[in-house]
Amino acid sequence: MLRRVVFPYLGAKSDRVIQGPGVGEDAAVIDMGDRVIIAKANPITGAEARIGWLAVHINANDVAACGAKPQWFLSIVLLPEGADESLLEGIMKDIHEACLELGISLIGGHTESTPGLDKPIISGFMMGEISKDKYVTTGGAKPGDLIVMTKGAGIEGTGILATDLSDRLLPEVGREVLERAAELLKRISVVKEALTAVEVGGVHSLHTPTEGGVMNGIWEMAEAADAGVVIEESAIPRAEETRVICEALGVDSLRLLASGALLIVVDPGKAGELVSVLGESGVVASVVGEIRPPEEGRHLVKGDGERTVIEAVAQDELYRILDEYSTEDQ
Amino acid sequence: MLRRVVFPYLGAKSDRVIQGPGVGEDAAVIDMGDRVIIAKANPITGAEARIGWLAVHINANDVAACGAKPQWFLSIVLLPEGADESLLEGIMKDIHEACLELGISLIGGHTESTPGLDKPIISGFMMGEISKDKYVTTGGAKPGDLIVMTKGAGIEGTGILATDLSDRLLPEVGREVLERAAELLKRISVVKEALTAVEVGGVHSLHTPTEGGVMNGIWEMAEAADAGVVIEESAIPRAEETRVICEALGVDSLRLLASGALLIVVDPGKAGELVSVLGESGVVASVVGEIRPPEEGRHLVKGDGERTVIEAVAQDELYRILDEYSTEDQ
Repeated sequence: MLRRVVFPYLGAKSDRVIQGPGVGEDAAVIDMGDRVIIAKANPITGAEARIGWLAVHINANDVAACGAKPQWFLSIVLLPEGADESLLEGIMKDIHEACLELGISLIGGHTESTPGLDKPIISGFMMGEISKDKYVTTGGAKPGDLIVMTKGAGIEGTGILATDLSDRLLPEVGREVLERAAELLKRISVVKEALTAVEVGGVHSLHTPTEGGVMNGIWEMAEAADAGVVIEESAIPRAEETRVICEALGVDSLRLLASGALLIVVDPGKAGELVSVLGESGVVASVVGEIRPPEEGRHLVKGDGERTVIEAVAQDELYRILDEYSTEDQ
Repeated sequence: MLRRVVFPYLGAKSDRVIQGPGVGEDAAVIDMGDRVIIAKANPITGAEARIGWLAVHINANDVAACGAKPQWFLSIVLLPEGADESLLEGIMKDIHEACLELGISLIGGHTESTPGLDKPIISGFMMGEISKDKYVTTGGAKPGDLIVMTKGAGIEGTGILATDLSDRLLPEVGREVLERAAELLKRISVVKEALTAVEVGGVHSLHTPTEGGVMNGIWEMAEAADAGVVIEESAIPRAEETRVICEALGVDSLRLLASGALLIVVDPGKAGELVSVLGESGVVASVVGEIRPPEEGRHLVKGDGERTVIEAVAQDELYRILDEYSTEDQ
């Protein structure tokens, strides 16, 4: 759909645009001579708690996935008509807190009451910069590179399931797991690991998997590089809370909303050092697979040796399971 | 309200932010060494036709009002659920067209169906750059400077009134005036005149009046500079269609939605050249007043010599009159 009704309409051509819109690319890259500006725009439209905090982190992740420290944020906050001033203040405090966590300045934006809204919507715009010889794209993977993944599969999705389906999950998984799972939402930032990876060096591609989970993120990364890939399922890190909750609901954690994990495609000679430096900084990371020539295809190798093809994920497991339960409610 | 619940929450401080959020400032200014990046975010939330086109031009105006050529645009397009693909394609074509008019590249963004929306919403984010010694702020006016205004008062408001209240206006003003008035909407870009002004030189402040009309724009400009001002009402340019339609509705054209006009505060020695160069390029412009020391206050001098105080405009005339007529309809 993007290829049909969006990509043909990109305005004037510019030599300064090193990277514009593309499937799976995390952000735009603009040539500034000795350095590049990285820019990204994402909205938060769900009624989640702490949308101001999320809007900063989701946009920061995409800028960091180009190797750049996110630095400058603009926010457009649209409020339901008649919303209390405290709603706006809560959102602004959350934006402020997330900005302080990452050293980002809020430099502008817009706030208004918008007729017809029943909940607030935030559109976030993040900018960062990095020297021109150091920025990283999603599509830079080369055959032989190793794929390092951080933190775990389905982190954001696990947190949302623990919150939204807590009544259904409580008898089976217990209160302690639910509470720890909800806390996973605080771990969706990948800025620290992205900047650490760029510092260690040898990074050919960074990508933040989101909708469609880790599997879709791996597919996007391989697609952007026109590469094959082989992934060892048993090597994919997964929080205990994710395993327990996904089992209880019959959800595939590898196809579950994945913000919080970072895919790092790295020169094989650097992978060991990277995993160890990340570990020392408190970020769990594992080598989960390897980039292969395109003709070898894209495969996930299960524990028993069975190989399945990795394809784009049409529907995130989160939406499937939330739909299922909301239908049962009716 | 902004001072209470937004401005205290601006995240991390940064030496690189030359201009952050402030009342009346058109855009953010980021220090890049030899140059600055100008960045601005504005949404289009009304159900106006051609919202894609408007989103580009409104954001471009604010970047140009800092003296910089707008160059890079990101758009977040939120669609009602179940919207036809042709709605998105129409919006993208409009964005494309406006970008081509101004030589801007669309470099990224996000498109989604958002539950709960009954019409599309666009959040636009524009960037431009200019050398560090050349950027212009709203607040740079100095006593003795002259104020040049382009095109006319209430351009955008006139176009909207001609469209939205056409049935009521038709008997009094006639079809030809209505058609020409609706065409005024095509003239909301001030990019050409802003860049021309910076080229002529001696510009101390640029500002794009929008809500609250030219009077509010002049107040914002004076407030940002902590300056007094005296304006000659008879010198303010106004399209014939604006005069006729505002008279018919009892609307004050100086307090009517003003996109399309640019306020240029300029060294008195340069004002004549500026007005003449603008005229040669097809942009009507007049000297409408002068910046005064703050202790002299802010005044509008009417044709009969009467002086009234210029204050912030609490409600744009457009909303007052649309409200009035929609109440009558009930």
